[in-house]
Amino acid sequence: MASIVLLSVKQTAQTKAKRCLGSRLKGLAGAGGPSATFLPGREWLSKDLNLRFMSHGTAGRSAAGTTKRGALAFSGAVAVTAAAVVGFLANANHFQRAEMATTIPQKAKKTKEEEGDIAQRCRGFMSVPVTDISVLEKRKDEMSTKMEMLIMETQAEFCKALEEVDGGTFKVDKWQRKEGGGGISCVMQDGKVFEKAGVNVSVVFGYLTEEAAKQMRSRGKVLKGKDGKLPFCAMGVSSVIHPKNPHIPTVHFNYRYFEIEEEDGSKQWWFGGGTDLTPVYIDRDDAFLFHNTLKEACDKHHPKYYADFKKWCDRYFYVRHRGETRGIGGIFFDDLDSPNQEEAFNFVKSCARTVVPCYLPIVRKHLNDSFTQEEKDWQQVRRGRYVEFNLVYDRGVKFGLATPGSRIESILMSLPLTARWEYMHEPGKGSREAEMLEVLRNPKEWV
Amino acid sequence: MASIVLLSVKQTAQTKAKRCLGSRLKGLAGAGGPSATFLPGREWLSKDLNLRFMSHGTAGRSAAGTTKRGALAFSGAVAVTAAAVVGFLANANHFQRAEMATTIPQKAKKTKEEEGDIAQRCRGFMSVPVTDISVLEKRKDEMSTKMEMLIMETQAEFCKALEEVDGGTFKVDKWQRKEGGGGISCVMQDGKVFEKAGVNVSVVFGYLTEEAAKQMRSRGKVLKGKDGKLPFCAMGVSSVIHPKNPHIPTVHFNYRYFEIEEEDGSKQWWFGGGTDLTPVYIDRDDAFLFHNTLKEACDKHHPKYYADFKKWCDRYFYVRHRGETRGIGGIFFDDLDSPNQEEAFNFVKSCARTVVPCYLPIVRKHLNDSFTQEEKDWQQVRRGRYVEFNLVYDRGVKFGLATPGSRIESILMSLPLTARWEYMHEPGKGSREAEMLEVLRNPKEWV
Repeated sequence: MASIVLLSVKQTAQTKAKRCLGSRLKGLAGAGGPSATFLPGREWLSKDLNLRFMSHGTAGRSAAGTTKRGALAFSGAVAVTAAAVVGFLANANHFQRAEMATTIPQKAKKTKEEEGDIAQRCRGFMSVPVTDISVLEKRKDEMSTKMEMLIMETQAEFCKALEEVDGGTFKVDKWQRKEGGGGISCVMQDGKVFEKAGVNVSVVFGYLTEEAAKQMRSRGKVLKGKDGKLPFCAMGVSSVIHPKNPHIPTVHFNYRYFEIEEEDGSKQWWFGGGTDLTPVYIDRDDAFLFHNTLKEACDKHHPKYYADFKKWCDRYFYVRHRGETRGIGGIFFDDLDSPNQEEAFNFVKSCARTVVPCYLPIVRKHLNDSFTQEEKDWQQVRRGRYVEFNLVYDRGVKFGLATPGSRIESILMSLPLTARWEYMHEPGKGSREAEMLEVLRNPKEWV
Repeated sequence: MASIVLLSVKQTAQTKAKRCLGSRLKGLAGAGGPSATFLPGREWLSKDLNLRFMSHGTAGRSAAGTTKRGALAFSGAVAVTAAAVVGFLANANHFQRAEMATTIPQKAKKTKEEEGDIAQRCRGFMSVPVTDISVLEKRKDEMSTKMEMLIMETQAEFCKALEEVDGGTFKVDKWQRKEGGGGISCVMQDGKVFEKAGVNVSVVFGYLTEEAAKQMRSRGKVLKGKDGKLPFCAMGVSSVIHPKNPHIPTVHFNYRYFEIEEEDGSKQWWFGGGTDLTPVYIDRDDAFLFHNTLKEACDKHHPKYYADFKKWCDRYFYVRHRGETRGIGGIFFDDLDSPNQEEAFNFVKSCARTVVPCYLPIVRKHLNDSFTQEEKDWQQVRRGRYVEFNLVYDRGVKFGLATPGSRIESILMSLPLTARWEYMHEPGKGSREAEMLEVLRNPKEWV
């Protein structure tokens, strides 16, 4: 995909860290104890963040301490999506299953968050977090902690909403990565409403591979590692939901956070993410509700976010060889590091909090819609296109599959349970299938 | 995939051509008349082939007129397979359907071939050939004509054998490529025996794209174009057959021929191809029959061909992220240009003539095997892996999808009608499914 400029602001942030991740990681070779124990590698997250911003695009860096506007560019090399946070990193050598009673009601969360009672909030999660609770409590003001709590909450909130509507329960797999970190995969397969529903969290750290560093540099990042090594920490929540009924659309979302430590101990960080909808048939009310919910979340943070990230989404989820978008879009962004870390996080939080109101009303509305075999077949053909996008274009999936030791099952969790490829399939003129294709070939504005 | 050395002989051939393809092609911009008419671009195939061999690997060329032994290396960049010949080239802007009565019995072919009665042989094909019959007759001693006849015959022979066993008929699509050439796609979908059966021929020419030339150079070819332009001609037959019954394996084959003309008018040419089997359950007798039929064809031409090309096949059809081969292999080769053009063609002809005896006895044997829903589900899971290989690794598919204007339906004809992805699917210990996996994880010798 060619580079596209979506925002008129570019700001790459660096956070001066007082501790050196590199030196800490050296002592960690082979670390990776039992599930849900203290993960020593997370200690590197500096206690006292001394925030300092540096602007540097492809042209290099400007003076430290300044904040400069530039271009938020999306170059083809890497837009690390859902699976990337997994694939990138998930050398899940120690794989375990968490069997947790998740009994805490979800409603109390927001107030709890304000109080900062981490242990209490963790009780509502699908599993204990990847990072030990005592470590999260100790470092509760750090962005990595805030983000890990957000992704765990998003996973729990979404899973519980889906369980409620389906009647089934998620299978919860907690896995660890030998090199540092791990994840929690929640999958419901062949439910009453959902053919396959996956909601995945991963929190991983280690050294960037040469390939990853190269891809990041190719999209404008200046990364100077010590002895060529670049310690990183990455975390995210990602989900793909494939319902059985062809009148209920597929949804995908992913929200993620990256930190990379450079030679001089300073850090670069950024957020990425998005939510997008893939219906089998067009329902204009659904499309409006979905996009408008996202727009309202965006508008609270920047008047241009929705328009820019909507465009970005249409361009990213494009099945080039078919000349079609994967679905009717939503929002997509990457490398978000402005206006500051707290504000960027607040934006991501707003987005993450929309996943239930974006999707669940649509699910409930179509829960009992009847459908024909032809409609089911068309859904299966669209599922085939979904597979094509994910295996051929999705940078996260590609990157994950190319990374030795990745947790393949978490990366490919996004594939539907069933799909279909019909030779020369072309819907009849004027049909609802043709209407859908028309929208995929010419993305629309919905709000 | 890392480079692997499979044969102890390397020989890159050059054919001195008296006509300049480059200059001919210049006059052809926008050519592409109606289907099955005279395709003027094919005129470039030189009438009087003055064969001359040059050995040149990555290290450069040796003196003309000599034949030197080296290494037949398979570098990761391009092993142009089935779909490549299509994808590479198939800018099928003029798409038409051929409706032909294919009434000539297939048995008479071999004697007809000896007689060289091209018009007579063409009557047995699934469609008129891509190249006009009068042109084929005029140039009947040229390799491009011999190969086009062989791929058309292979298509017809295989399609008719499948129709006979299924009772259904192939849908025949003849398409043209604006830049030169075209193809004939035969597809049977949702038959009695076959879920999806595709047998495709393509004969295309034009100028190599920069990307294609780069990939060819990366595997050791020295290509000097005139003003950077490299006229080429490529043709092949390719097929993937997905049966309904999980006890009948999927088969794939592809045989192809390339010619590239260089700055000085000399030509490089090579053959490539292979046949491989993807069963859902292991049947040792089937595996023996399949491999032994291929071995017998190979042994007639070189004592090392079977062993070397069997190994190459196992390495090529490898789903790396799963740690599994796609199936139980067969043979695979590329860049074959030794010991001379006629002998290399004869080897390819022997291989192409095995596709029916390799596969049809296996189909007939299992035609009425009963199967359970569990067996059908396992077949669908294996189909999912087939899709993963084809979309993630197959160089031909990747190349085709990345080439603007490719005939996508012919490239993706290889995908099954239906496939399935189950999260964390793992067959029970000692099951027949586990036996299959074991073989895919540790390729076996079958003869």
